[in-house]
Amino acid sequence: MITAYASSWVLPISSPPINNGAVAVADGKIIAVGPLAEIIDQLGPANVQIDDQGEAAILPGLVNVHSHLELTSMRGFLEDLPFHQWILKLTRTKYRLLSREDLLASALAGAAEAIKAGITTMADTCDSGVSFDALLISGQRGCMFQEAFGVNPADAEQSLNDLSSKIEKYRQRTTELVSVGISPHAPYTVSSRLFKLLTDYALRERLDVCIHAAESSAEAGLLLSGTGSFAEGYRTRGIDWEAPGCSTIAYLHRLGVLEARPLLVHCVAASEDDLDLIEQSRSRVAHCPKSNAKLGHGIAPLIKMRKRRISAGLGTDSVASNNTCDLIDEARFCCLAHRAQERDEAILKAGDVLEMATIGGAKALGLDERIGTLEPGKEADLIAVDLSQIHCLPGYDPADAIIYSCSARDVKLTVVAGNVLYRCGALKTLNEEELKQAIRELGKRITSAE
Amino acid sequence: MITAYASSWVLPISSPPINNGAVAVADGKIIAVGPLAEIIDQLGPANVQIDDQGEAAILPGLVNVHSHLELTSMRGFLEDLPFHQWILKLTRTKYRLLSREDLLASALAGAAEAIKAGITTMADTCDSGVSFDALLISGQRGCMFQEAFGVNPADAEQSLNDLSSKIEKYRQRTTELVSVGISPHAPYTVSSRLFKLLTDYALRERLDVCIHAAESSAEAGLLLSGTGSFAEGYRTRGIDWEAPGCSTIAYLHRLGVLEARPLLVHCVAASEDDLDLIEQSRSRVAHCPKSNAKLGHGIAPLIKMRKRRISAGLGTDSVASNNTCDLIDEARFCCLAHRAQERDEAILKAGDVLEMATIGGAKALGLDERIGTLEPGKEADLIAVDLSQIHCLPGYDPADAIIYSCSARDVKLTVVAGNVLYRCGALKTLNEEELKQAIRELGKRITSAE
Repeated sequence: MITAYASSWVLPISSPPINNGAVAVADGKIIAVGPLAEIIDQLGPANVQIDDQGEAAILPGLVNVHSHLELTSMRGFLEDLPFHQWILKLTRTKYRLLSREDLLASALAGAAEAIKAGITTMADTCDSGVSFDALLISGQRGCMFQEAFGVNPADAEQSLNDLSSKIEKYRQRTTELVSVGISPHAPYTVSSRLFKLLTDYALRERLDVCIHAAESSAEAGLLLSGTGSFAEGYRTRGIDWEAPGCSTIAYLHRLGVLEARPLLVHCVAASEDDLDLIEQSRSRVAHCPKSNAKLGHGIAPLIKMRKRRISAGLGTDSVASNNTCDLIDEARFCCLAHRAQERDEAILKAGDVLEMATIGGAKALGLDERIGTLEPGKEADLIAVDLSQIHCLPGYDPADAIIYSCSARDVKLTVVAGNVLYRCGALKTLNEEELKQAIRELGKRITSAE
Repeated sequence: MITAYASSWVLPISSPPINNGAVAVADGKIIAVGPLAEIIDQLGPANVQIDDQGEAAILPGLVNVHSHLELTSMRGFLEDLPFHQWILKLTRTKYRLLSREDLLASALAGAAEAIKAGITTMADTCDSGVSFDALLISGQRGCMFQEAFGVNPADAEQSLNDLSSKIEKYRQRTTELVSVGISPHAPYTVSSRLFKLLTDYALRERLDVCIHAAESSAEAGLLLSGTGSFAEGYRTRGIDWEAPGCSTIAYLHRLGVLEARPLLVHCVAASEDDLDLIEQSRSRVAHCPKSNAKLGHGIAPLIKMRKRRISAGLGTDSVASNNTCDLIDEARFCCLAHRAQERDEAILKAGDVLEMATIGGAKALGLDERIGTLEPGKEADLIAVDLSQIHCLPGYDPADAIIYSCSARDVKLTVVAGNVLYRCGALKTLNEEELKQAIRELGKRITSAE
C-alpha cells in the first residue's frame, strides 16, 4: 500500500510549493510528489491511502547539524556564565554527577524533544556514546561524532587507541539510519599531535570528522597569543603550550586537519583568510546562531560563507546553551540576526533559512542524495507543520508562515524513512511521560549537589 | 470569595520567585502574594478558592508597548520589501481593500492572538479606530493612540480638527481599562507644523503621545540631507521639504515635541546626543527588536538606554512586520540579539527582559502604579506559563525557563483585572473560530486583488 501524505501546502524545497499537494511514500521511499489529485490519478485511487494533514505544510524533515543530546538535563543550569566557566561547570557536572544511565535518559529526552520539533536527522557530538543508543531507540536518522580529548601530546596515542576501539564497536551496530564519526573536540582540549593522529585515522577509516572551531575570543586568545582564560587554565594545570600565533582555522590547516573536510562547528571568529581555507578545503560549517548569541560569542559570517558557497547547515547546539532544540526558532533567529547585522531586509529570506534547515543540513552531513528535499527516490523523511492556528493566519506564502510565525510547537507529524515517529502530540517510539519524570529527577539531583 | 491562583512558581517581578506560591485576588485586585500555604493560613481556608495551575509560572500579564492590531490580516503579505515600498504597499492595501468592518475583524483576531500569548495590556497605534473597539470587546487593558498624518503644512489645522473630534468621541467611551492617546505618525508623514499643533493639543488635553521615530536609514536621510527614498517620494508628490539637517530626535526636540514626553517607537538610529535628549525630556521608548531586525533597520541602542535609565518597554510591532504577537519570543530575541551585538554573555539576563516585558512596559505607559508586578493593591493582571512540557525540563530558574524555552504557546491562563480572558486553549470573550475564518477570507481577498 502507498501512503499519500496530503496537505494544503507541500514544500519540496527543490521546487516551488505545491497547493493542495501530496507526497506518496512506499517502502520508506518517496515515489511521487505533486498535486493530490494528480498523485491519485497517477497511482490509482485503490492503491493509495490518504493521510490528510489539512491546513498545514508538508516539508522535508529538519536536519540539526549540531547537538549534544547527553546534556539535556543541564538545560537552564549554566546561565550567564563566561564561556570558560560555563565549560568547567558543565564538565564537572557531567563527569561527577551523571552516570551512563543518567546520560542516556538525558539523550532520550533530547531525542523526544527533537522528534516533536520535526527534526528527523541529528548530528550529535558525544563523549559517553549514549546518543548512538538514543538515535537507535528513537528511530531518528543521525550521525554520532564520538568525541576525543587530550591536551597532553604524550597521551595522544592512548587517546587514539581508546577512540578507535570505541569506533569499532559502534561500527558493528551502525544501521541504514545511524552512523558514527569522530570529533576531536576543540583546539583548547586536543593537542596538535592528537589532531594529526585523529585526522590520519579518519582519512584511513573514511570517518566523518566534526570539530568545535573558532567559537570564542578565549579560544582565539589561546591560539593567537597564548592569552585569555583558556591559556590561564593551561598554565594552572601545568600544560605546556606554545601558541601557534594564528587563527583556529589556519592552525587546523597547518596541521593537515582540513584535509579531512571536517564539519566545523561555529566559526564565529572566521576571517576572510579563514573562509578561504574553509572554501578551498571544502570543509563544512555548522552554524549555531542562538548558542553563539546567548554565550556572547557574536554572529558568525554566514553571509560571507554563502557568497563563497561554503556548505553550512543549522545547528541548535545543546540545550545547555540554547536552551531549546527548535530548528524553526533557530532558523528565524538566523534570518533576523543577520538582517539586523547587515541592515538589509532581504539578505536572508524565509526560503533561504528553510533550505539551510533541510537540504543545507543534508549537504553539510553528506546526506543530500538521500534526504533534505521531497523528491521521488529520496528516503521518506518528512514533517507536517500546522498552519491553521490563529498566529499563522492569514497564510500568504507557506515558507514565510513557517519561519516567521511557527515554532517546534506547530509540528504535528514527524516521519523518518517512512516510519511515523510522532503524530498530533503522541510519540511512537519513546515514552514521553517517563522521560519527563527522569529529567525532573536529574534536575533535582543536579540542583541539590550544587 | 477570594481566588488564589497557585502554581509551582510565582514571579512577582518586584521580588524573588516564590516556590509553590499563590496570588490571591478579590474584586479584580491582588490582595496577597506568597507561598500558597501562608496565603491560605492568612485568608482562612473557607474564604479561598484555589485555582491550581500546577507545574507553571504565574507572573504579571505581559505589556506590549507597540502594536497595530488593525494590520493583522496583512501578516505575511509584505515580505522582503525595502521599507518605503513596504509602507506604500501596506497603506495601499489598507485604504483601498479593507473596510472598517474588515479592519475590526483584523484587530479582533490580533487581540485573540495577543490574549492567547499572555498579553494583558496593549499600546496600539491605529488610524481607523478599530483597536479601541477591539480592546473593549476583548477585555484587554490598553491605550489606543489615534494616528494623525499630514505632510502638507497648509492642512495642519484641518488634521488637528479631525483628530480632536475623534478624540472627543473616544473619550466618552474610555473605561477603567481602555484609554486613548494620540500618535503623530512619523517625521516622514507629519509636517513640522502639524507636529507642533498636535503637541500643544496633547499637552493642553493631557493626552499621551506616541511617535514612530528614528526607525530607518530612509528616515534619517530625509531629515539629515533630504536624500533617500522618502525624500524622493516627497519630490514625486510635489511636497516642499527643507531638511532640518539633524536627527529625528533632535528635530522633535527643536519642535518642542519632546516636551510631551512621547513614547518614541524604535529609536534604532538614536545617537548619544539623541539619547541625551530622550533622557533629559524623560521621553519613553518602545523597543521592537524583531521588527527592526526583520525590516533590516538594525538593533536599537538598548544597552545605552538602560545605562541612562531611559524607560523602555518591549513591543512586537504589527504582525505585518514581525510576524507574530509573541512577547516571550520578542524578549528572547531581545536578549540574544543584544548579547550577540555586545559579545557579552550576561549583558541582558532572562530576568532583565522579563522585567522589560512586564513592569518595564507598564512604566513606559505610565501604568506602573496599577499593573506590571504582582503586589497587593495592584490590579489583577496575571498569566500562567506552562513549565511542564518536555522542552522546559528540567526547570532550574523559572525566568530562564520562560525566556529561553517558552513562547506564547505555553501560556495557559490570561487574567485582566481579575477576569479570566483565556484558559487552556479557550478564549472567553472572543469567538476564535469565527475570527480565524474572517482572517482567512480577508487573506484570500487581499491575494486576489494583487
